[in-house]
Amino acid sequence: MAALAAAPAARSVSGVTAASPATVPLPSPPAAPSLATARPLPYTLLPVPSDLAIAQATTVQSIRAIAAAIGIGEDDLDLYGRDKAKVHLAVRDRLAAAAAAAAAADGGSGGATAVGRLIVVSGINPTPLGEGKSCTTVGLSQALGAHLGARVMTTMRQPSQGPVWGVKGGAAGGGYSQIVPMEAYNLHLTGDLHAISAANNLLAAAIDTRLFHESTQSDEALFRRLCPPSAKDGSRRFSPIMRRRLDKLGITKDNPADLTPDEAARFARLDLDPASITWQRVVDLNDRSLRRITIGQGAAEKGLTRETGFDITVASEIMAIMALATSLGDLRARLGAIVVGTTKEGARGGGGHPVTADDLGVGGALAVLLKDALLPTLMQTVEGTPVLIHTGPFANLAHGQSSVVADQLALQLVGPGGYVLTEAGFGADIGGEKAMNIKCRAGGLTPAAVVLVATVRALKAHGGAPPVKAGTPLPAEYSTVDVAMVKRGAANLERHVENMRAFGPPVVVAINRFATDADEELAAVREAALNAGAVDAVIANHWAQGGAGAVDLGRAVMAACDTACGGGAPPPLKFTYDLDAPLKDKIEAIATRVYRAASVDFAPTAAVRLAEFERLGYGGLAVCMAKTQYSFSADPTLTGAPTDFVLPVVDVRLSAGAGLIVALCGTIQTMPGLPTRPNFYEIDIDEDGVIVGLS
Amino acid sequence: MAALAAAPAARSVSGVTAASPATVPLPSPPAAPSLATARPLPYTLLPVPSDLAIAQATTVQSIRAIAAAIGIGEDDLDLYGRDKAKVHLAVRDRLAAAAAAAAAADGGSGGATAVGRLIVVSGINPTPLGEGKSCTTVGLSQALGAHLGARVMTTMRQPSQGPVWGVKGGAAGGGYSQIVPMEAYNLHLTGDLHAISAANNLLAAAIDTRLFHESTQSDEALFRRLCPPSAKDGSRRFSPIMRRRLDKLGITKDNPADLTPDEAARFARLDLDPASITWQRVVDLNDRSLRRITIGQGAAEKGLTRETGFDITVASEIMAIMALATSLGDLRARLGAIVVGTTKEGARGGGGHPVTADDLGVGGALAVLLKDALLPTLMQTVEGTPVLIHTGPFANLAHGQSSVVADQLALQLVGPGGYVLTEAGFGADIGGEKAMNIKCRAGGLTPAAVVLVATVRALKAHGGAPPVKAGTPLPAEYSTVDVAMVKRGAANLERHVENMRAFGPPVVVAINRFATDADEELAAVREAALNAGAVDAVIANHWAQGGAGAVDLGRAVMAACDTACGGGAPPPLKFTYDLDAPLKDKIEAIATRVYRAASVDFAPTAAVRLAEFERLGYGGLAVCMAKTQYSFSADPTLTGAPTDFVLPVVDVRLSAGAGLIVALCGTIQTMPGLPTRPNFYEIDIDEDGVIVGLS
Repeated sequence: MAALAAAPAARSVSGVTAASPATVPLPSPPAAPSLATARPLPYTLLPVPSDLAIAQATTVQSIRAIAAAIGIGEDDLDLYGRDKAKVHLAVRDRLAAAAAAAAAADGGSGGATAVGRLIVVSGINPTPLGEGKSCTTVGLSQALGAHLGARVMTTMRQPSQGPVWGVKGGAAGGGYSQIVPMEAYNLHLTGDLHAISAANNLLAAAIDTRLFHESTQSDEALFRRLCPPSAKDGSRRFSPIMRRRLDKLGITKDNPADLTPDEAARFARLDLDPASITWQRVVDLNDRSLRRITIGQGAAEKGLTRETGFDITVASEIMAIMALATSLGDLRARLGAIVVGTTKEGARGGGGHPVTADDLGVGGALAVLLKDALLPTLMQTVEGTPVLIHTGPFANLAHGQSSVVADQLALQLVGPGGYVLTEAGFGADIGGEKAMNIKCRAGGLTPAAVVLVATVRALKAHGGAPPVKAGTPLPAEYSTVDVAMVKRGAANLERHVENMRAFGPPVVVAINRFATDADEELAAVREAALNAGAVDAVIANHWAQGGAGAVDLGRAVMAACDTACGGGAPPPLKFTYDLDAPLKDKIEAIATRVYRAASVDFAPTAAVRLAEFERLGYGGLAVCMAKTQYSFSADPTLTGAPTDFVLPVVDVRLSAGAGLIVALCGTIQTMPGLPTRPNFYEIDIDEDGVIVGLS
Repeated sequence: MAALAAAPAARSVSGVTAASPATVPLPSPPAAPSLATARPLPYTLLPVPSDLAIAQATTVQSIRAIAAAIGIGEDDLDLYGRDKAKVHLAVRDRLAAAAAAAAAADGGSGGATAVGRLIVVSGINPTPLGEGKSCTTVGLSQALGAHLGARVMTTMRQPSQGPVWGVKGGAAGGGYSQIVPMEAYNLHLTGDLHAISAANNLLAAAIDTRLFHESTQSDEALFRRLCPPSAKDGSRRFSPIMRRRLDKLGITKDNPADLTPDEAARFARLDLDPASITWQRVVDLNDRSLRRITIGQGAAEKGLTRETGFDITVASEIMAIMALATSLGDLRARLGAIVVGTTKEGARGGGGHPVTADDLGVGGALAVLLKDALLPTLMQTVEGTPVLIHTGPFANLAHGQSSVVADQLALQLVGPGGYVLTEAGFGADIGGEKAMNIKCRAGGLTPAAVVLVATVRALKAHGGAPPVKAGTPLPAEYSTVDVAMVKRGAANLERHVENMRAFGPPVVVAINRFATDADEELAAVREAALNAGAVDAVIANHWAQGGAGAVDLGRAVMAACDTACGGGAPPPLKFTYDLDAPLKDKIEAIATRVYRAASVDFAPTAAVRLAEFERLGYGGLAVCMAKTQYSFSADPTLTGAPTDFVLPVVDVRLSAGAGLIVALCGTIQTMPGLPTRPNFYEIDIDEDGVIVGLS
């Protein structure tokens, strides 16, 4: 880390700033960290400079060196410039195979082979400013890797570009606990979000094109165009992807000429009901005017208009699929299984039947577009510990976690005794629950411990302080010592601790310290956490100090893992519901056991659709709750630990490729807007390529 | 090149296929090519396998080795995987500076320092099947680099993904003259197209968001939100980008508090007339239903709906800007200067005034999004010669050429005596004309020679054979020997030769041989070319033979360059018009001197707009003709060398950032559609990541 010659304006944290920067000495690092690239910060500055200033002052190490330190050879790396690289999944498979072979040679029982310890980082219900979950994940990683000599990797979501240009800014952590280079992390990175947008929109174009062609062509003409006679000898053939639809229709013939007119019609006409289409287009930015649009108004479209809309890319089902797929083959199967809508009448009587991406002939093309996006991207923290960035699904419509393959890869790379930190989006009622019931279940992952991030600020909000709003000064309550208010708010933390304990792993509470926090307030948080059953609760100051500020937290987490694993694998997770339960029961289990709702109120449409999903064979999917992150309930103003509320499920959606039934607990905004003065007003670049104003 | 164990179905060229592949011996390569990576093909197969099969059977060399062979060190390379890399523009600047210093030390006159020889490859008016311009560019490059011992680089456009999924297929050349890996070339490559889409659409979101906020807020509220008081001390400030708008308005004050209410209102309210907005959104695929849409129909948008549409990404003005920008600073200036529409009333009386990206505060953010996209991507041909892929602007709405910076970089890298081949989109009436009057003028480039690609097939189409249609068998005329028909059609070639000669450089005609061509037909083409003033006309067979099939063409091109340059720099270009001529005169110059129209018919709207553009200070821009590529006229069915026609200019557009006034000679489709059975029906990927069906 180079010195910041001219420290820029200090970031105002809780209103505290200082007049000029001071160099803060940090504790001495240990003699020899086990990751050769891990380098404790030599010092930090107060006031803490802007994230971009810290990032740009960091001497970013070659990503080849970072890779080598964790055991990734050059042949398994696709470099994207000097400081980021995609890692081949073959590494995971080779290491797993080698470990299995070693275990077999060792007379092992054939059970799961030993890998690193997975730690899920979640938090209490946050304020709109966020409580530093990403920052804590990164800081803890730096503590483990650069100060405590552990083999550690962190898996992080790739952020959307929307907040970068809009209001919130980047998501690379912050202060002295961040991922570098932050410009690359927050912008294109290695193109995965763009690939997902391209795939999502190719499927959308395939849908509307097919609607158009089916509306203007006879069954016979459609069939002829789908299986055109060759110019050479007039023969026809099915392309391999068509075999999937033929199989679905029970047609075993291989030669298009052999199909009866009825079979040809059933094959060629998807008969998709425009009113049933759930697939939207996406763009990776905040464009509110695209929320609701009418398409098909060109003169050549023959009046085939349709109302639809754009979501932000991270809301695409394809993003959720990428996060849950376990291999390229699994990805291909999931993409083909995406349901875009249902048929008008149902080919076999009764209700409509699902129409899939493979019915449209486009599942293979989607997989081709996404083949590189399935590989996690390796980056580094400011202290040189390795980070895998991969996928960033919405935390409401989807499950809000980085990918299964990134965790699997990291767990193999750190090996037995190593640590993998992964962040779960939103509060633990949503992110923590989905980490266990959706992601870990899909990926066969078993966390050894849970870290819950809490702040005095958020607990005050839960204890009755006026609401925190982004972009306006904090009310005075947040900079005035008020232990009683913190204790009232601690009810929120206590419930999250209990909830996470119910899954099995031990819970460590990370108290993310702000400069305005009083010692007695911090002590109150710690006491509440321990009373609720946390194995430890530790004050951490990694934003201002980097890994050095989270060494105590790191020791507590290591101890928790030791206790949980006892030298072996962690005990299996206790899920909130079994997959074979009825869909309604699964939703009710989460609502009553995690949120502590008195009951669930299913809107009539939601109830009908759930029954329909079960009829169509999707009853065994996991449920994914789309709910506000600010409360256990669906009402964001209901802070603390509310009880006796009814959880409304206003609608449900099928994400067949992701394997999720999404329950909407209120209106979910899937396309943010830009404010009058977006962040982009501050952002520019000079002739030498130096970026200013990113936050 | 590894052997093709099982050659797939032969590509049908002019209806000729063979039953089983045969190995074809090739001429012996020279002893020591000057590019260490250049490797002549050891043999080829007949029938020629599919492009994908050839590409996948090629042993792709490490891009580091390709870079090293042309003199690019690792520090100047951003690797994107093993086989593609972005090249820093600093290489160009360093080499230019070194050459200038050497020339000065040598007592040079201070004129242009010596660089390689630029060769522009264009063609006659093609059929819808294309006449192999890309393939000839690549094949000629292989001949020069792998067979004739020259230092050579090729600059190519990056293709859109639209045709890949739609009808036409990829654009990496073809047969044994192509760029590898073709999957990477045709899909995401290094993300430039995605970056351009992101920038284009961020500007669109900025426009509609501003319309919304201006429609709902008072001048005072707008100003307060644009320059909000700081939470610390209530002070306000202008962000640096706001200085641009303040300067434009003649406001010199630095403190927002000092502005008069009138100044604040003029600053804050852009007053953009929705009806004047010319900026569309883009997506890089064929989605016909987005051609015309209505946006803003969400309940929160308060009825602020607007009709607009999506273009395909390559039609974005930002693509044209990327292709013409000469540095990051120039790019930033051009992006800020983009005009998205005009004010409702005009701040200073009279007609509306232009509203720019910098007025919207977003010019800097656009440049940040595009900083990596400004770097050309290095790839290789199947014979290991270096290729720079960069930008792919539409050849009608824009100028259809790869970038100025790629050519400048390549010319420095090959150095004096080396060769740079670049392709100009469409026929020479459009691509050749724009290469000279737009691209070379903007970039200070002077071609040493022009290669015009002609085929017997296209000349037959110009000579009266029935029209060629993609996807249907060729009429019998195209496989029947008919010298008279070829001679009639040769009028098209002759006029292109004359036109290109008028710019100054010598013209070599490349006759791209098909298997059905008769010797006497080929001789007729050659004779016509020489009669029209071509310095040579050479039959080439690079599709089937790689560089070995274009060795004679390569020798002719080298000889032409020698004659033109005479040991020094080529003579200056003779442009068709001077930039300071009136806009109408510039359009008329191209129409009458290049197309040979009798006159131009300006639609009333077009004439009014041209006058308006001159009033607004855009009279000095170059003109960019948007016309069909199939005829010298605006009527695609008017083949051959028509005269006495009137060229209609139905509308004109301002591309202020690109520096172009676009004259629309008829309706230009800016968003293609997908057919009933798109290419994607053939495309898939297996578990090992092997792609099938790309064409």
